[in-house]
Amino acid sequence: MKLSADEIVRLLLALAVLVASARLLGEIARKFNQPAVIGELLAGLLLGPTVLGRYAPEAMQFLFLTGHVPVVLDGFSTLAICLFLLVAGMEVDLSTMFRQGKLAIGVGLSSMILPFALGFGLAGLIGPAWLGGGPNADSLLFALFMAVALSISALPVIAKTLLDLDMYRSELGMVIVAAAIFNDLVGWIIFAVVLSLMAGGGHHRFEITQTIGLTLGFAAFMLTIGRWLIHWLLPWLQAHLSWPGGVLGVAMTLTLAGAAFTEWIGVHAIFGSFLVGVALGDSHHLRERTRSTIDQFVSFIFAPIFFASIGLKVDFVGDFNGLLVAFVLIVSCVGKVMGAGYSAYKLGMPPKEAWAVGFGLNARGAMEIILGLLALQAGLINSQMFVALVIMALVTSMIAGPLMQRTLRRKKPKPFTDYVGARSFIPDLKASDREAAIIELVPVSGAQGVPLDEVALEVIARERMTPTGLGMSLALPHARIEGLKAPQVAVGISRQGLDFDAKDGEPAHIIVLILTPASDTTLSLELYREVVHRFKDPELRERLLKVRNYTEFLALLASAPGMKSATHMTTMISAPAMATRVRSLFKE
Amino acid sequence: MKLSADEIVRLLLALAVLVASARLLGEIARKFNQPAVIGELLAGLLLGPTVLGRYAPEAMQFLFLTGHVPVVLDGFSTLAICLFLLVAGMEVDLSTMFRQGKLAIGVGLSSMILPFALGFGLAGLIGPAWLGGGPNADSLLFALFMAVALSISALPVIAKTLLDLDMYRSELGMVIVAAAIFNDLVGWIIFAVVLSLMAGGGHHRFEITQTIGLTLGFAAFMLTIGRWLIHWLLPWLQAHLSWPGGVLGVAMTLTLAGAAFTEWIGVHAIFGSFLVGVALGDSHHLRERTRSTIDQFVSFIFAPIFFASIGLKVDFVGDFNGLLVAFVLIVSCVGKVMGAGYSAYKLGMPPKEAWAVGFGLNARGAMEIILGLLALQAGLINSQMFVALVIMALVTSMIAGPLMQRTLRRKKPKPFTDYVGARSFIPDLKASDREAAIIELVPVSGAQGVPLDEVALEVIARERMTPTGLGMSLALPHARIEGLKAPQVAVGISRQGLDFDAKDGEPAHIIVLILTPASDTTLSLELYREVVHRFKDPELRERLLKVRNYTEFLALLASAPGMKSATHMTTMISAPAMATRVRSLFKE
Repeated sequence: MKLSADEIVRLLLALAVLVASARLLGEIARKFNQPAVIGELLAGLLLGPTVLGRYAPEAMQFLFLTGHVPVVLDGFSTLAICLFLLVAGMEVDLSTMFRQGKLAIGVGLSSMILPFALGFGLAGLIGPAWLGGGPNADSLLFALFMAVALSISALPVIAKTLLDLDMYRSELGMVIVAAAIFNDLVGWIIFAVVLSLMAGGGHHRFEITQTIGLTLGFAAFMLTIGRWLIHWLLPWLQAHLSWPGGVLGVAMTLTLAGAAFTEWIGVHAIFGSFLVGVALGDSHHLRERTRSTIDQFVSFIFAPIFFASIGLKVDFVGDFNGLLVAFVLIVSCVGKVMGAGYSAYKLGMPPKEAWAVGFGLNARGAMEIILGLLALQAGLINSQMFVALVIMALVTSMIAGPLMQRTLRRKKPKPFTDYVGARSFIPDLKASDREAAIIELVPVSGAQGVPLDEVALEVIARERMTPTGLGMSLALPHARIEGLKAPQVAVGISRQGLDFDAKDGEPAHIIVLILTPASDTTLSLELYREVVHRFKDPELRERLLKVRNYTEFLALLASAPGMKSATHMTTMISAPAMATRVRSLFKE
Repeated sequence: MKLSADEIVRLLLALAVLVASARLLGEIARKFNQPAVIGELLAGLLLGPTVLGRYAPEAMQFLFLTGHVPVVLDGFSTLAICLFLLVAGMEVDLSTMFRQGKLAIGVGLSSMILPFALGFGLAGLIGPAWLGGGPNADSLLFALFMAVALSISALPVIAKTLLDLDMYRSELGMVIVAAAIFNDLVGWIIFAVVLSLMAGGGHHRFEITQTIGLTLGFAAFMLTIGRWLIHWLLPWLQAHLSWPGGVLGVAMTLTLAGAAFTEWIGVHAIFGSFLVGVALGDSHHLRERTRSTIDQFVSFIFAPIFFASIGLKVDFVGDFNGLLVAFVLIVSCVGKVMGAGYSAYKLGMPPKEAWAVGFGLNARGAMEIILGLLALQAGLINSQMFVALVIMALVTSMIAGPLMQRTLRRKKPKPFTDYVGARSFIPDLKASDREAAIIELVPVSGAQGVPLDEVALEVIARERMTPTGLGMSLALPHARIEGLKAPQVAVGISRQGLDFDAKDGEPAHIIVLILTPASDTTLSLELYREVVHRFKDPELRERLLKVRNYTEFLALLASAPGMKSATHMTTMISAPAMATRVRSLFKE
């Protein structure tokens, strides 16, 4: 069977529209420091029955629903979700979990008990008929599913929040991450069992007990022998296959084979790819570049297609049930925040930090959405419950960061580029000595409410006292200014090079002027440190000298190796891209 | 329309089998220094009607031909070929072509004339009925197609051959590459016109003249304004989107949209993605990492799926027509070698180099296969002609390297790791001084036919005369040995560090013993230089100290940044991965 020319046109167009809109809205979501998945879902919602289908049904029909296009798109999104779960699995760092030991597993386990019990109890009590059960929902399975749905956590969202607060490497951060890993792993395995219980009744390839046995057996195998085999094989593969693509092919083959196996035994393809991801990601032989190639392609191509295509399937307005949404939202938040917070407190954490753990683990993210989708497809829940779960996932993810930040009274550090505008970047300084450079930079710095001449004199005085030429052709004249409201940074590039009295005797080509309010003592130091860190790479500095405008300057900084700096990840990373970068951070 | 659970199992399994077998055979092809595409095609041949279909038709039926699986696979391979052409387009470096100027365009143009005329003349004379024309072949279009099929060249194969011979950066190399780029570009545009002529008669969306006009118009737009727009947009995108994934999403959107457009106007989707690739790849703002992420994923996942799936469509034994194969092979080789060689000679090259140009441009590679497939699908040729074209493509690609090598009497340099075996790597040297280390390494070096004690003495004597500690914790004791047949290298890691009198005063941890035959004066220097280059990266050296066995040692070197060394690319790179690396070479 082949696609007709007309179907090819529509298939390519549909994919182009999905990728473009999902990526665009995903980027916008991130600009507001929200997970990209929110924007990606919204794209699907705009293109699907919720909006486009309502106002221009023939356009939706033409793009997504005619001929063989829908079935091919379904094939694509199946593959996309398998790959997404591969990446999610690769983020599950078993050794982090074990290293955190008792506390992590304690918090992980006990943070699941309350929401699990709440979900199970309430769903059992109310029953699927009243609570958005699907056509195949029996009361026990439905209650079990709701229990799992309320008790999982979203590792990527949590990790990103911690990074934003510069707490990822703190002990508190590691406990939260390890507990989330534990949550994820246990939640998914229970859900796999729920699905096997349903499948046993479904297409009868295996008895229920066989399906459960095969599921747990496969999980146990991949987490022990499979993991060990992969770890042992990787060096040989890297030595003898083309690099890095050889390992890429092997990872793909394993993912597809694992997915086919779990789908065959009657659970769902994604369990196989998730477990392959866990086994693969755990090996420290897997090199950074392979990891990030998979990660980039999946996060920026496959995941957007998948999440947007969810929106194509459900009418979020027609299936919105306010009561159900409120119920799910309240029960999930109460269960998780209380459960996790209380257990952290009981395990010896101070109250404030314990609350933070609760708020952190409350984020559900993309995983909840995938869980809901599978349950919807299996007929375990109906579209109204699915919509409620999606909204719960998004809301819990969005509030996790702000709530943790409030509880811990931490501020998200801003990258220094946030203080540099198009006007405060001079690609070609005219100055021929350092004082002239300072005089050239001060007026464009954007300092307001203070006399600029005095600011310049202040900076020059400081510069005379302690010259700020750092070597590496970098100079950082700076001053704390009385009456300045907000920090200001200006960057100038001097093609000829200016003498800033650097120890290496070389002239400075990159002049970064830093002005901070006199009251703020820590900020100036942070900015100073960050600038030095960002310009450490010699190749970056060389390229910087060729930059012709502000946009090129930003582009260069955004794509430089220095980007790995923790402070900067906050504005840039996607949820699944995060683990990769975090790992690379630890290596630095 | 949705896939059933059963179809998902078979789809995932089919993809797993395709990727695994194509990658495996692709790797084997490369071990014999042949393009991976040969192995990938062979995998399809084994899984398709040629072998599996002949001996176990029900297995082939189960995997690839039941339910919705074939149509989804068709969708995948359509996407795969579009992405492959995107990468191929990114390799077309217009500035290289322009830089080489008259000579390149001269050779490029005149090397096309003879094969084009031969193909057109003979195919026109004999006619489609006798020469494997398809059901829709009219004589003029068939003759035009054969003319194009015989006159294109395969840039990736050619570039790889040149790299193998260490000639990529020579003037001769650049002329050949530029001529091949020119061939490619002109050939594809003519072919697009042939397809538009057919489509015009086909589904009547446009008049023939409209289709041709739109095709040429789109090509002209993408090569000028489109290219310029992309170049101008990229810095902005890199500055404001997530990096590197943001640009990835944009590249994907453009590719899909371009492909949809050209398919819509009635040529084929791949022209759109090819032209987008040319426009995108030409911008020096496109950063290395984005390029290589696309490249790796396409070369190692999508391309294998696509080429293997070609084998699924055709019975290579049943459709093998010896006479046709011989005819196509002879006409194509005579036309191209003579045409390109003579024109190079006329343009002032010495005869030997002119022959080399001819042999080089004779390689047809993957592009010919894609061209043939499109013609087969359009009903322009029949399966027998398709098989003949595939065989011609493979044979011309395989003989190009050896023939150039012979003509120019150049040898392919071997990487130093080729001289280091499992036995000649000592992960933990016992020696506590440099002479003991030499005595420890000489016996494992594999030197034969010479007394080992004298070899050791020779090396020690040399070491005393000029110490070989280079700093960077690297020492390279070496000697030219009378009577030694082949070069021998042994590598030892000293955990404690040995004093080799390095200028930086630091002890050496990595000891590389190099023994070369006394007769060979250049080789020792080459090896020496290469080793230094390979160990330049500080991170690599640090990791090396933790290596526990030979496999880990090889894995580490294979995945190190030093891999970009020209000498080493030869054994590792895939055809499309090449351009990326070549570009990075020029940047070093």
